[in-house]
Amino acid sequence: MSVYDKLNLLKITLPESDAPAAAFVPFVRSRNLIFVSGHIAKKDGKPWVGRLGAQLTTAEGQQAARAIAIDLLSTLHTATRDLNTVKRIVKLQVLVNSDQEFVEQHLVANGASEFLQEVFGPIGAHARISYGVAQMPFGACVEIELIAEVAAARFEE
Amino acid sequence: MSVYDKLNLLKITLPESDAPAAAFVPFVRSRNLIFVSGHIAKKDGKPWVGRLGAQLTTAEGQQAARAIAIDLLSTLHTATRDLNTVKRIVKLQVLVNSDQEFVEQHLVANGASEFLQEVFGPIGAHARISYGVAQMPFGACVEIELIAEVAAARFEE
Amino acid sequence: MSVYDKLNLLKITLPESDAPAAAFVPFVRSRNLIFVSGHIAKKDGKPWVGRLGAQLTTAEGQQAARAIAIDLLSTLHTATRDLNTVKRIVKLQVLVNSDQEFVEQHLVANGASEFLQEVFGPIGAHARISYGVAQMPFGACVEIELIAEVAAARFEE
Repeated sequence: MSVYDKLNLLKITLPESDAPAAAFVPFVRSRNLIFVSGHIAKKDGKPWVGRLGAQLTTAEGQQAARAIAIDLLSTLHTATRDLNTVKRIVKLQVLVNSDQEFVEQHLVANGASEFLQEVFGPIGAHARISYGVAQMPFGACVEIELIAEVAAARFEE
Repeated sequence: MSVYDKLNLLKITLPESDAPAAAFVPFVRSRNLIFVSGHIAKKDGKPWVGRLGAQLTTAEGQQAARAIAIDLLSTLHTATRDLNTVKRIVKLQVLVNSDQEFVEQHLVANGASEFLQEVFGPIGAHARISYGVAQMPFGACVEIELIAEVAAARFEE
Repeated sequence: MSVYDKLNLLKITLPESDAPAAAFVPFVRSRNLIFVSGHIAKKDGKPWVGRLGAQLTTAEGQQAARAIAIDLLSTLHTATRDLNTVKRIVKLQVLVNSDQEFVEQHLVANGASEFLQEVFGPIGAHARISYGVAQMPFGACVEIELIAEVAAARFEE
């Protein structure tokens, strides 16, 4: 099944990629690796603000992580022009805006990890690091960056 | 000297790799790079809990970092099937669960860095970033991820 | 215009690369990627200490980020021997020593991002992640790591 069929089945429409809020680009391709910039959680188009263990629960954090994964896919679609050329989701880095006592960053991150495996199947299984940060741009609750491998470099040297 | 002879000399037995505690995999290989997931510090098989500058000293943090490096080697052994095919330890990212006043993250990280150079010699010398985080999965004191380069891609395209 | 002409125009002299303060190396090259270690902010040769939102303003953080970008270029010059062989600045990771209420990490990071685009032009545009950390080595205010792609591997296998 194509990635887009799978997204349709999940009733997910990829959003338009936002322009970054700062002086960088949403992704860079270097040979067969695509480095996708950190994407923060959004709700109704605005930063999803809050700290896990204080204003937000683990379940809400998982929803935020899943929402980011959809945005990351949107950027990856722009980068590849065809998500079916993705060969592997290589790595996620998942940052969770955390209260000093909150220790379920890995469960929050699962919201993104499980979604990617649902969409991509086995090639969606990735290496990962997740941890709690003191604060985030715009006060966002979760931020995720991604590295993906694509099938062939366009201009292999 | 082979990496395994060196480990024997140091009286280190690589542990069985644990299954990740969440929806991801311990490593992903993309061509000649192996991305190893973040590994948290463990003691007696359980998360090594605590914050540097509060419950744990720099020396204890260094022991925790060294213990993680052994676990990372175990995962890298699974990934490569032969640690002697490692061409370079490319990069470590070292996260230290830190009190607001603790500023010796780089010394904690040395516990892992020095061990890797002891085992691998010059090819164990790596790029690195270390810093203090607000909290960590399971409340662990240190978490480390690693990128390694191996000699040749198995299915080079 | 060569990168060095551009630096001259900006009246920037690249500093001598400092030896790392710990058991790692300033950069590692793996094929066509150069992984540059985390560099902390310095002022007058010493760590630039402070927390954003407490002792330091966003504008000061931007200056610190720009100063680090100059140091990163110095290391990249050592790594490449010729900055004109840089094909792309691939990614920055920007850590900001942040008070719990400080949410302008992306603006701080722009101090480095804008400088790199000023020096390199379009190939200076990079993927990026920025966030707030609890503490940093030496209490530094900002720390940045960089990945760059160079034109051709010296010993391509």
